[in-house]
Amino acid sequence: MNQDKFRLQIPGPTPIPPRVTQAMARPMIGHRDPDCSRLVKDLSQRLGPVFGTKEPILILTSSGTSALEAAAVNTVSPGDEAAVVVAGAFGDRFAKILERYGTTLHRLDIPWGEACTPEQLATFLRERPQVKAVFLTFCETSTGVLHPIPELAAVIRRETEALIIVDGVSSVGGVKTQFDEWGLDILVTGSQKAFMLPAGLAFAAVSDRAWKVIETNPQPRFYLDFRAYKNNLEKDTTPYTPAVSLLFGLEEVLTMLEEEGLKNVYERHQLMMRMTRAGIRGMGLTLMTSDEASSPTVTSVLGGDTWSSEDLRKELKRLSVRVAGGQQHLKGKIFRIGHMGYSDPVDILATLATIEVAAARVKAPVRLGAGIQAAEEELIHVPSLNH
Amino acid sequence: MNQDKFRLQIPGPTPIPPRVTQAMARPMIGHRDPDCSRLVKDLSQRLGPVFGTKEPILILTSSGTSALEAAAVNTVSPGDEAAVVVAGAFGDRFAKILERYGTTLHRLDIPWGEACTPEQLATFLRERPQVKAVFLTFCETSTGVLHPIPELAAVIRRETEALIIVDGVSSVGGVKTQFDEWGLDILVTGSQKAFMLPAGLAFAAVSDRAWKVIETNPQPRFYLDFRAYKNNLEKDTTPYTPAVSLLFGLEEVLTMLEEEGLKNVYERHQLMMRMTRAGIRGMGLTLMTSDEASSPTVTSVLGGDTWSSEDLRKELKRLSVRVAGGQQHLKGKIFRIGHMGYSDPVDILATLATIEVAAARVKAPVRLGAGIQAAEEELIHVPSLNH
Repeated sequence: MNQDKFRLQIPGPTPIPPRVTQAMARPMIGHRDPDCSRLVKDLSQRLGPVFGTKEPILILTSSGTSALEAAAVNTVSPGDEAAVVVAGAFGDRFAKILERYGTTLHRLDIPWGEACTPEQLATFLRERPQVKAVFLTFCETSTGVLHPIPELAAVIRRETEALIIVDGVSSVGGVKTQFDEWGLDILVTGSQKAFMLPAGLAFAAVSDRAWKVIETNPQPRFYLDFRAYKNNLEKDTTPYTPAVSLLFGLEEVLTMLEEEGLKNVYERHQLMMRMTRAGIRGMGLTLMTSDEASSPTVTSVLGGDTWSSEDLRKELKRLSVRVAGGQQHLKGKIFRIGHMGYSDPVDILATLATIEVAAARVKAPVRLGAGIQAAEEELIHVPSLNH
Repeated sequence: MNQDKFRLQIPGPTPIPPRVTQAMARPMIGHRDPDCSRLVKDLSQRLGPVFGTKEPILILTSSGTSALEAAAVNTVSPGDEAAVVVAGAFGDRFAKILERYGTTLHRLDIPWGEACTPEQLATFLRERPQVKAVFLTFCETSTGVLHPIPELAAVIRRETEALIIVDGVSSVGGVKTQFDEWGLDILVTGSQKAFMLPAGLAFAAVSDRAWKVIETNPQPRFYLDFRAYKNNLEKDTTPYTPAVSLLFGLEEVLTMLEEEGLKNVYERHQLMMRMTRAGIRGMGLTLMTSDEASSPTVTSVLGGDTWSSEDLRKELKRLSVRVAGGQQHLKGKIFRIGHMGYSDPVDILATLATIEVAAARVKAPVRLGAGIQAAEEELIHVPSLNH
């Protein structure tokens, strides 16, 4: 096989569109140059609709994890009580960050592969009225679960005065997001998932309610201090030298999202999810999540007793398709297919067909062609193809 | 003038070599892919000679400022005493970070434009024996001063047990650096200066002595916790998704530095400094720093009473050459010429000639051609041109 050609179907980093690569190749400019200021201002505003907010979006130069940490250190200080819903490795990361900073942690553990329900969260919060902030994971990348954020947020608003803080790393840009309407307080994400960019930028939407807490929160922080980003954004700039080449790329990404239209972007992701799920079921493998809890951006598939999901991943790699394995206790037990960002229905057909081949090669009990057929039927009946 | 063509002669970000831009355009790969692990391992080792150390170099995805903060939060905790030499805006940034984290700060202020001498530092430290760490700035980008780090480090070793922590942001890669031989404990830098890359990566060399402190330092930190980078580097990876496209670029940058040879790279920077200084003096303008204190990477020039350095910068920009202004109280009083990274003697000739033109246009008292002549004489007599 030509190893130079490969399909990156992991849940991030995701493939970079050629026009974004070209944009990132623009000659470097100074970060205090008026051209860079125009860019920062433009991007922080054009990011708003993707988050579903009228507020300008803060742009940090760092990985997504730093944005989770920023959400924590800007809102809580040692001894404050916080609740974290942990339904996978990234909810767990929020918990680890908060523990590191001496937060009094209320951890609502949900079996991995399931979503936290509004009822579970309501009961949990009712017994913990001192909670100052609730940390949620929109898409739990480690399992492919999409949390019902609007419903969870409504419960939090009803039961407490707590801030609602959401990790949107593998969802924002691929899943409809209404920061203002849902009443969220902080929503963060990174650049290397649905935003179709390399890692290196992180974004944050922040509510007025959250700013009131952030402005007076005594927790020391410097690089991740949202106040510095807000104050500088008012002057159309960033507090420290940003990853300018990624800003060039982001400008092109936003143009692509605007050209396709966010509604169509979200429908494409829904379609890729339905195709993937129909395909996996059709070929005879087992999905990890229910239809209700599934994410439009990533799908987890269970391994079997008679075959190894790690062997399957190796076969896929030899055939040019890269999917991810499981994290923490799911290592060796699942594989995960990313379908977000620069990915389309034909990528999903190719991925599914290759999974059938690889599964047959590792003696997994699959029906060749049956998965593809089921996925094709999802695609055939898409209304937007009818004109 | 063709505004699409411009010369970026600011002290960072610096121009990106075309072959580095091409490398960064490689298709994205997964950050847990063996190809990425090979890359991380290779880069962390090949960075060593640039820092002058046998230790592997830690690679963070963030701006240089985060590396200054990392150096602080990994080594001191609230109430610890630390000394900071402040000779400009970036020494001041170290001080601000340490104050933010509740460090008991001993601040040695040096007039901006001058370097701290070993004698000054010795006297200062003798009166402050409790100091746990001393924070130095190798090149003070805001003034163009290069500190005599080997001599300062020797003084610190002689007078105290303190860790020696150095901001190498606008020097490492352009100035000979001997981390091991000089006995430094932490040396950090960013990607957008002599490393010829966009901003977005930060690097750190850490001594065994420093690791002993870092391992037990109680200051909470997560994204900037050096321990996580060290533990993951032992498995050839990074704790969080790195800016992979910048890693691709860094690989090419290191190849370029190895091809030219570090000795030649440093001599080229010395030559550009001598040419710039000779040129500025020759045309009749005034250098901010002495020959002894001057940096091979950036040169500051004083404004005059009868003309405006900001007007000069505007004229230069109209002529396609971008130089930087002054920071903090030097705003409007100096301009700064960057000459590091992807910059060569002919760039300096072009920059100096354009400065003569722009200076004449803003009625600064310059002798046309005289600066260029002086710079040319520096270049003519370079031994490496004699074969």
